[in-house]
Amino acid sequence: MSFSMIRTTTFQLATVVAVLLGFGTPVAVAQNAPASAGTPDPELILDLIAANRTLASHGIVDAYGHVSVRHNLDPNRFLMAAARAPALVTEADIIEYTLDGVPVDLRGRSQYSERFIHAEIYKARPDVISVVHNHSPSVIPFGISDVPIKPVYHMSAFIGEGLPIYDIRDESGMTNMLVNNPVKGGALAAELGDATAVLMRGHGVAVTGSSIPFAVARSIYLEVNAAIQLQAIGLGGSVTYLDPAEAREVLEAGENRGYDRPWELWRRDALEQ
Amino acid sequence: MSFSMIRTTTFQLATVVAVLLGFGTPVAVAQNAPASAGTPDPELILDLIAANRTLASHGIVDAYGHVSVRHNLDPNRFLMAAARAPALVTEADIIEYTLDGVPVDLRGRSQYSERFIHAEIYKARPDVISVVHNHSPSVIPFGISDVPIKPVYHMSAFIGEGLPIYDIRDESGMTNMLVNNPVKGGALAAELGDATAVLMRGHGVAVTGSSIPFAVARSIYLEVNAAIQLQAIGLGGSVTYLDPAEAREVLEAGENRGYDRPWELWRRDALEQ
Amino acid sequence: MSFSMIRTTTFQLATVVAVLLGFGTPVAVAQNAPASAGTPDPELILDLIAANRTLASHGIVDAYGHVSVRHNLDPNRFLMAAARAPALVTEADIIEYTLDGVPVDLRGRSQYSERFIHAEIYKARPDVISVVHNHSPSVIPFGISDVPIKPVYHMSAFIGEGLPIYDIRDESGMTNMLVNNPVKGGALAAELGDATAVLMRGHGVAVTGSSIPFAVARSIYLEVNAAIQLQAIGLGGSVTYLDPAEAREVLEAGENRGYDRPWELWRRDALEQ
Amino acid sequence: MSFSMIRTTTFQLATVVAVLLGFGTPVAVAQNAPASAGTPDPELILDLIAANRTLASHGIVDAYGHVSVRHNLDPNRFLMAAARAPALVTEADIIEYTLDGVPVDLRGRSQYSERFIHAEIYKARPDVISVVHNHSPSVIPFGISDVPIKPVYHMSAFIGEGLPIYDIRDESGMTNMLVNNPVKGGALAAELGDATAVLMRGHGVAVTGSSIPFAVARSIYLEVNAAIQLQAIGLGGSVTYLDPAEAREVLEAGENRGYDRPWELWRRDALEQ
Repeated sequence: MSFSMIRTTTFQLATVVAVLLGFGTPVAVAQNAPASAGTPDPELILDLIAANRTLASHGIVDAYGHVSVRHNLDPNRFLMAAARAPALVTEADIIEYTLDGVPVDLRGRSQYSERFIHAEIYKARPDVISVVHNHSPSVIPFGISDVPIKPVYHMSAFIGEGLPIYDIRDESGMTNMLVNNPVKGGALAAELGDATAVLMRGHGVAVTGSSIPFAVARSIYLEVNAAIQLQAIGLGGSVTYLDPAEAREVLEAGENRGYDRPWELWRRDALEQ
Repeated sequence: MSFSMIRTTTFQLATVVAVLLGFGTPVAVAQNAPASAGTPDPELILDLIAANRTLASHGIVDAYGHVSVRHNLDPNRFLMAAARAPALVTEADIIEYTLDGVPVDLRGRSQYSERFIHAEIYKARPDVISVVHNHSPSVIPFGISDVPIKPVYHMSAFIGEGLPIYDIRDESGMTNMLVNNPVKGGALAAELGDATAVLMRGHGVAVTGSSIPFAVARSIYLEVNAAIQLQAIGLGGSVTYLDPAEAREVLEAGENRGYDRPWELWRRDALEQ
Repeated sequence: MSFSMIRTTTFQLATVVAVLLGFGTPVAVAQNAPASAGTPDPELILDLIAANRTLASHGIVDAYGHVSVRHNLDPNRFLMAAARAPALVTEADIIEYTLDGVPVDLRGRSQYSERFIHAEIYKARPDVISVVHNHSPSVIPFGISDVPIKPVYHMSAFIGEGLPIYDIRDESGMTNMLVNNPVKGGALAAELGDATAVLMRGHGVAVTGSSIPFAVARSIYLEVNAAIQLQAIGLGGSVTYLDPAEAREVLEAGENRGYDRPWELWRRDALEQ
Repeated sequence: MSFSMIRTTTFQLATVVAVLLGFGTPVAVAQNAPASAGTPDPELILDLIAANRTLASHGIVDAYGHVSVRHNLDPNRFLMAAARAPALVTEADIIEYTLDGVPVDLRGRSQYSERFIHAEIYKARPDVISVVHNHSPSVIPFGISDVPIKPVYHMSAFIGEGLPIYDIRDESGMTNMLVNNPVKGGALAAELGDATAVLMRGHGVAVTGSSIPFAVARSIYLEVNAAIQLQAIGLGGSVTYLDPAEAREVLEAGENRGYDRPWELWRRDALEQ
């Protein structure tokens, strides 16, 4: 039984529930506030706050960008901060959302208009437990160039044979570039497919993980990979990327030991601020 | 005769020449100090101090460069620090200026010789409430190259279809490169036209905004855009910039939500120093 | 069966395989713990902790990468931290290892799976007293490009006429890229030969030194050299590298005065944290 | 009377003295310790300490590199730290040197082997009051490439029409690359000529100034210029550098207002450590 098979099976129930919910009942949802799934694990909230601050301290997000996590009590809910700079996020900012991007209890807090990136990915990908959206600077070039991103080393094996690019123009024409409704979020999730991340042309990237540490670490190593690849191409010679078989071996061996090692460091640094 | 004495003499002569060149009635102005528009909103002063420090902490200005804001009580006055490094600016440094660049009450403080960049833009562009002048490092190349700056993502939609370049040589010949009188300031403002910013060949950039957060955020994202564009071009493939229609959509939707989100972060960080 | 349980099982199996593959008498070793060479010089331990933190503060390691030193009482033992981020390493994390990569007294601490990089280099190179393994970002391109790394200035004279590249694929085929057993470590050490460092294709580098300061300083100046060489090549003209005879002269003159000067600074900064 | 004429006249006496001293009496000097010129101005010592720390905090020097200043009481003496990392320099490290590089009162302190860079420049250039030697990373490429450094903006007008490159190999053959005696120092000073700085092939740069702030600021803006020029060339289009006449105008206008503005900031930051 392969590693990826296991993960798929574990979350099969969530898929069914998510599909049944769809995004067909937004009006009803708006009229009757959705029920809360209950108080999340306090450690998960601390992880989410640490994720916000870690992404900011590593330059992966500036005042824009966001990170979310699926609720530990209900796969049909996810948790994400109110609309403020990630470096400033505290527990009071965390909002519970349905997979339609409807807040359970807004209490006057402002919302990220692009929460549908998260909502639709959770709907489409039951294996995904955490999502990061960012505009990290070295990744942007690969979303607007015809030169594809590729893994330069084992730390970015999750890139595999490359990453899909979502061009909002393909489905939505000329827009303000924001994935600010379920239709755009759904198109993004469709472009993501089974990949670990999807580049967004003229915008940024959406990164997934089977936990907060995976989504955060992949966001950071995607930026590192992009910066290194830019340099390697700049040398002007031929470049040897990770072989797809090598990338698969890295993932099957646990993908950089599950990122437990950086997470110990990042969470400590973030919560000791 | 000491080295510093020589320099003082040179600058005194320059002052006389500048006053003689100036628009309007500089001699009378020098004799009869212009009246103050009154005490500015204390929050505006705090914003201006925060702007100075934020630009410094983000590497947009080093010890040179400056930021100003139109007086909240009189559109014919603007506020800008005395001539010192932006990181050091406090309330005692803020000088009120007429749109001819004449200080209302100098009290012995030294002045930025390039205050005419600000004065002349405020004269020519009533919609502009704040101006930043800086030498941010990734923007300089686009002022001296025939490769035009273009928006790589929605955060820099204010670039639109590109930015004008002011070459001081066109009107003023061989100079010390400083926009240190109203004639040069006027030529710069004319080159700016309706754009959000104007590159200055061999020098830097002048950036405008409808508020301090807009002028500061555009200065920061112009630098980020330049750095990303440099990388995208370095990949060697074709590059897809933001479509002009997309750029317009972003601006019409409020241009990155008015930069309220970064401003909460930047002002807090700047004033908590 | 939870996700983390799966991973644990996978690693247990890997451990067994690694032990079976190992050189010498791994089973006996597992049963009869090797004897300790005795308490190391406390100053050496402080140097090792300072090395961990210095490499982290200089961006040579992030949460991954490691540094070791040969035991001062026994050339057949070396000292290295348990598997955690170098920035977090303290005295309690230091483990004594045999040159087969077997811990003398593990006490439940987790181990770097790539300790065999260190073990096999110490076996093959008696002159080596300290080893660093890292993924420093500007060095990676030279491990995956056909453009060779060369010394751009006297600080990196230890590069000599270039550095060998270890491609794990040559001996081990498609792997998870980790040098996690003695066979791979031995192949890496063979590729290193008499050089000061060996690049690792799609992975990073292993750097040696006749002391901790040498291994740390070479790691830092290898990164600096790589970044400078990338820029020099980016200029598009011809590049003049250090002549091999000049490189030899630098090394014969003591190689940057033995790095005593940076080590005073780095150790102070690291231990005053 | 021009700006440069004034400076030349002011230090004419120093030239005569320096020429008379030559470097013909090193043995006598070694036998009879040279007399001190007296206690330097305490403010000059603070400036020198601030210069050391500022160069370190700006990444212009790491643990290597040094800065000196001519003694305020005697143009035939200069002051420089003992051989340690500039970030660590305090008053107790300051050594008085003759223009032959002989210490007045060493008191067991170790010396920079490359003090002859400073000594010989002071001998050859009476207008120079302060010298910096560094390996700043973006400058190195221009010392090993056939692409010449040029001023990209007014802040680096002191580059003029380019900078000379000293290749130690031309006079001294294969060496350890160090300018560690008067002959090499003299060849470097000869290559410098009337320029503000001289690149050193495969090594770094020596930068001069008519005061500590000038030498420090030029070192910093030389690095900034190099980084910007690298980016401008990377765009692939044609690049317009500062016109030589513009560069002269900037210098005649006082060269960035004498760097008083950054010096206020840098000295404060350095001494408040």
